[in-house]
Amino acid sequence: MKKILLASTSTLFGQGYLEYLLEELESFFEGRSTITFIPYARPGGISHEDYTALAAKAFSKINKKVIGLHTFTDPPEGIAQAEAIFTGGGNTFLLVQQLHQLQLINPMKERIETGTPYLGSSAGSNIAGPSMKTTNDMPIVYPSSFDTLGVVNFNLNPHYTDPDPNSQHKGETRETRIREFHIFNTTPVIGLREGNYILVSGDHKILKGKGTARIFEAGKKPYESKNIPF
Amino acid sequence: MKKILLASTSTLFGQGYLEYLLEELESFFEGRSTITFIPYARPGGISHEDYTALAAKAFSKINKKVIGLHTFTDPPEGIAQAEAIFTGGGNTFLLVQQLHQLQLINPMKERIETGTPYLGSSAGSNIAGPSMKTTNDMPIVYPSSFDTLGVVNFNLNPHYTDPDPNSQHKGETRETRIREFHIFNTTPVIGLREGNYILVSGDHKILKGKGTARIFEAGKKPYESKNIPF
Repeated sequence: MKKILLASTSTLFGQGYLEYLLEELESFFEGRSTITFIPYARPGGISHEDYTALAAKAFSKINKKVIGLHTFTDPPEGIAQAEAIFTGGGNTFLLVQQLHQLQLINPMKERIETGTPYLGSSAGSNIAGPSMKTTNDMPIVYPSSFDTLGVVNFNLNPHYTDPDPNSQHKGETRETRIREFHIFNTTPVIGLREGNYILVSGDHKILKGKGTARIFEAGKKPYESKNIPF
Repeated sequence: MKKILLASTSTLFGQGYLEYLLEELESFFEGRSTITFIPYARPGGISHEDYTALAAKAFSKINKKVIGLHTFTDPPEGIAQAEAIFTGGGNTFLLVQQLHQLQLINPMKERIETGTPYLGSSAGSNIAGPSMKTTNDMPIVYPSSFDTLGVVNFNLNPHYTDPDPNSQHKGETRETRIREFHIFNTTPVIGLREGNYILVSGDHKILKGKGTARIFEAGKKPYESKNIPF
């Protein structure tokens, strides 16, 4: 049975890395002692080594060992051996470029579809949908495709923010951008606010955290929902 | 002699389309009676026809006629005939996808390099640099390349906003994103705040509007400048 947890963010303001999720993760990863970490999304300031160490420190609190996928000379083999998978946040363009280049999309998809628990945060959540076309990130590198894992039937917009009614800034709001996505694409989109996450167990999907998510479906007015309606 | 005007935005809060620029545009387009408008960046809510009409209305105030490039069955021929070119804002991914698909990059580059005045706003300014890799837009479509006109030797980040020191939001700031761009790219980037624009005459480049621009160069700390230092 598919087991997927997609978080809008890894870290809440004033808290430690993954802190707000640890209790949930303890039950989510029950029966798994190691988690394979995909550190490719972080473009600078932190090495794959250090990023993995950050994840390892958080998971040590619930007695899980973390292995960085960058330590495998054959990364698809690292995925084949994984007991559980976690993709950390950063830049989605860089992450997706790396996943295609290292031929990881199909191996990851196969493992997740057959029940290997998958945790994503931010960019790591973006890639669970059919495409990365609703990321907020800057296109600092050119991926060979915008297609992603497609292990859920919706796209995510992480760190979702509501339009500021007092803003005099003329850049597009998040809502406008997602509605423009629907001029060219039909995949539904979930605007996931910080602190919220989606838990998938087989065909069952629930929204967790405070409040509602903003739901965007092609041809419909966006709306708030406490449930995932597709 | 190259003549390029790159604006951060087309419209200031509470004003009409191009209103704040009209006086400048009157002298910029001196001696040209028609302007060829590229309307491809707008993904929805407004047709190419209506978008062109919006530009035409603004330019009628300074007695210029506007021709939409979408009215040509052979768009490169429309560029070949252009007295002056204006690319309007919208979604940069869509604009660049269209420019590559319609094989407009080289004809535009050639005309601009040989002195056809070029005006860009927002997405239309983004494409003047060597790549679209510093756009703020959402990747709603997949362009065949991120390469753009390269008629100036810097990339722009339009609608530039400073980090909010009081924000508790964990999405990346604009500054972080541009610094991450420089992990993989060496092109300098100008963070152009709303209301500001860059005027290029041959090798001479000046920043116009209020205040300074934020300058990002690979390997340097970002800084404020009233001049374009490259």
